[in-house]
Amino acid sequence: MARFDGLPLRDELKAFEPYGAPQLDVPFLLNVNENPYPPSDAVVADITASVAEAARGLNRYPDRDFLALRADLAAYLGRESGAHLTAEQIWAANGSNEVMLHLLQAFGGPGRTALSFAPTYSMYPEYARDTNTGWVVGRRSHDFTLDQSKALAAISRHRPSVVLLASPNNPTGTALPIQLVEAVAGRTASIGAVLVVDEAYAEFRRAGTPSATSLLPAYPNLAVARTTSKAFALAGARVGYLAASKQLVDALRIVRLPYHLSAVTQAVARAALRHSDELLGRVEQLRVERDETVDWLRAQGLKAVDSDANFVLFGTFTDRHAVWQALLDDGVLIRETGPDGWLRVSIGAAAEMAAFRASLEKVLKSDIGRQS
Amino acid sequence: MARFDGLPLRDELKAFEPYGAPQLDVPFLLNVNENPYPPSDAVVADITASVAEAARGLNRYPDRDFLALRADLAAYLGRESGAHLTAEQIWAANGSNEVMLHLLQAFGGPGRTALSFAPTYSMYPEYARDTNTGWVVGRRSHDFTLDQSKALAAISRHRPSVVLLASPNNPTGTALPIQLVEAVAGRTASIGAVLVVDEAYAEFRRAGTPSATSLLPAYPNLAVARTTSKAFALAGARVGYLAASKQLVDALRIVRLPYHLSAVTQAVARAALRHSDELLGRVEQLRVERDETVDWLRAQGLKAVDSDANFVLFGTFTDRHAVWQALLDDGVLIRETGPDGWLRVSIGAAAEMAAFRASLEKVLKSDIGRQS
Repeated sequence: MARFDGLPLRDELKAFEPYGAPQLDVPFLLNVNENPYPPSDAVVADITASVAEAARGLNRYPDRDFLALRADLAAYLGRESGAHLTAEQIWAANGSNEVMLHLLQAFGGPGRTALSFAPTYSMYPEYARDTNTGWVVGRRSHDFTLDQSKALAAISRHRPSVVLLASPNNPTGTALPIQLVEAVAGRTASIGAVLVVDEAYAEFRRAGTPSATSLLPAYPNLAVARTTSKAFALAGARVGYLAASKQLVDALRIVRLPYHLSAVTQAVARAALRHSDELLGRVEQLRVERDETVDWLRAQGLKAVDSDANFVLFGTFTDRHAVWQALLDDGVLIRETGPDGWLRVSIGAAAEMAAFRASLEKVLKSDIGRQS
Repeated sequence: MARFDGLPLRDELKAFEPYGAPQLDVPFLLNVNENPYPPSDAVVADITASVAEAARGLNRYPDRDFLALRADLAAYLGRESGAHLTAEQIWAANGSNEVMLHLLQAFGGPGRTALSFAPTYSMYPEYARDTNTGWVVGRRSHDFTLDQSKALAAISRHRPSVVLLASPNNPTGTALPIQLVEAVAGRTASIGAVLVVDEAYAEFRRAGTPSATSLLPAYPNLAVARTTSKAFALAGARVGYLAASKQLVDALRIVRLPYHLSAVTQAVARAALRHSDELLGRVEQLRVERDETVDWLRAQGLKAVDSDANFVLFGTFTDRHAVWQALLDDGVLIRETGPDGWLRVSIGAAAEMAAFRASLEKVLKSDIGRQS
């Protein structure tokens, strides 16, 4: 393309635009699965005090191994999921997407492939592309669940070095049964591959759904990725992390850039983690709001996928872009993503969801709302 | 290696240990070219206030394109180097090593090579390795300058897609003549390659040494990398950046992970940039301390390389490790790096340099100080 004339930009990148949902200044932001509740005054005060202290030493490089933060994250996962983890079993980076990059740098790369099952998170193929890893996708079932025997067969056929399973899945909200995750962990172990279970939305899962962290003691080839961007309401601070065996984490330490996590980021995350009970209290409200949204969408005659996350995939529309645009015209920004005909709405606070319902109700009465 | 048994860690990574100089708790830290002066109370107060404001919105993702910070960095380079740059000509990431990663992801990669001239920064081959880019090194001259005709010949012979020149060079402190940099920019342009001039230490250069930013208007294939970790005393905040043509920056936007720069990092960097005059005031003191250190080392009968940076390479010793250890035993941590026999000392505050001189004086009187 002319815009890169004279520069040796790799051919496979030339067709791409920088990834990202539109960042628009509208009243109701329900497009990137953010937590609608800003940090409380207490959280802000603790973050501020921690950063003030860290700022006095900013002329020095940060702690490269950030074991204090990793211990805090291990303790948090213990409280949240009952996992027994040491600090050495935790890894963190600037967003879970940097965690994913480290995983594919270490375990993917040229001559190897990563496998996932679509529809799933649209960044996965970009991580593969950015690390020169081959990319293979199997399919989820029509209801967005994953057929265990088909999943195992795909692994045996493609022999990937990395398998990525999102649970709850984005953009469908679908959680995977722990038995399936364990079967995939076993099959990947048997072929010497790594299984990454992306639990970015795990805190929103419905009661009785176990986290894949429960499988860590049995599977040294398993990594369970988490983020502070969703339930934890810390998207702006960019802290993703994972739990795995110590040897898997040690492999990531080889490919990480030195000092990748700033002293300020470490201080902010540790301060927020001290308030995890308060931050997670909001999660229960969002779960209720989500389930009510699913019920309401179905009451309108729409399809809505069961969700264990903080968003709902609904549809299906003859012209989903027109529906998306009509909502945006009312100041409600949702996401045009997932299989054709579907739209995804993030779960916001009560007032935001009321605005969403009011706008969609109007659309459904018009020609724009035709369902497919 | 047994420690990664059962994990598909890439073969070329198995022999590596995680990169990084020892982080030891000793009184005199002169090993990683940090700025010895912590941020002043005024800087800390401004950083704290800015982060307090950012913290209130941390439930939202940060501005993905951070044009406000990029405009501030452009303005800073205008003041520091006389460069006329727009915000769109600036890129930033979590440390200049992430900036380098983006450059090699976009312009290097499988089937391509990056070329530099040793001895130079030891992370360059790691960036190449992490991006599956071939790595070729030419040689600097015996006095660590670079022979222009040899440099141009190496480029024509190896036809790299990326050439990396550090100026001032690490670990030697050597600045390159602007005429040589321009000749290399021209030769790389003629073969469709990118030239990266790593000016991490540029603020410490001696009077009359132009920055490669002066060449940007003529060379759309040139990127000049900078950092806030050295002169700017912000190593703990992890903000590296570069200046280049808009089209080169746009190529990097394709490979960057979305939201790679946190709202907190953006706030901290912008706050510090508001105090750039104060922060750079310290640079002049460090330059004087550096030149005195060079003089003192030579007065001891040692070799010391002319330096345009905040460190000095000196030697040469029969057993440099023993010298390094003897200084460490006195609480003075320097760096065992560079060609055999040489050691590198970062320029600290007056008291730190006095401790360094006292310890080295003792060593030079002992058998350990034997010169080669």
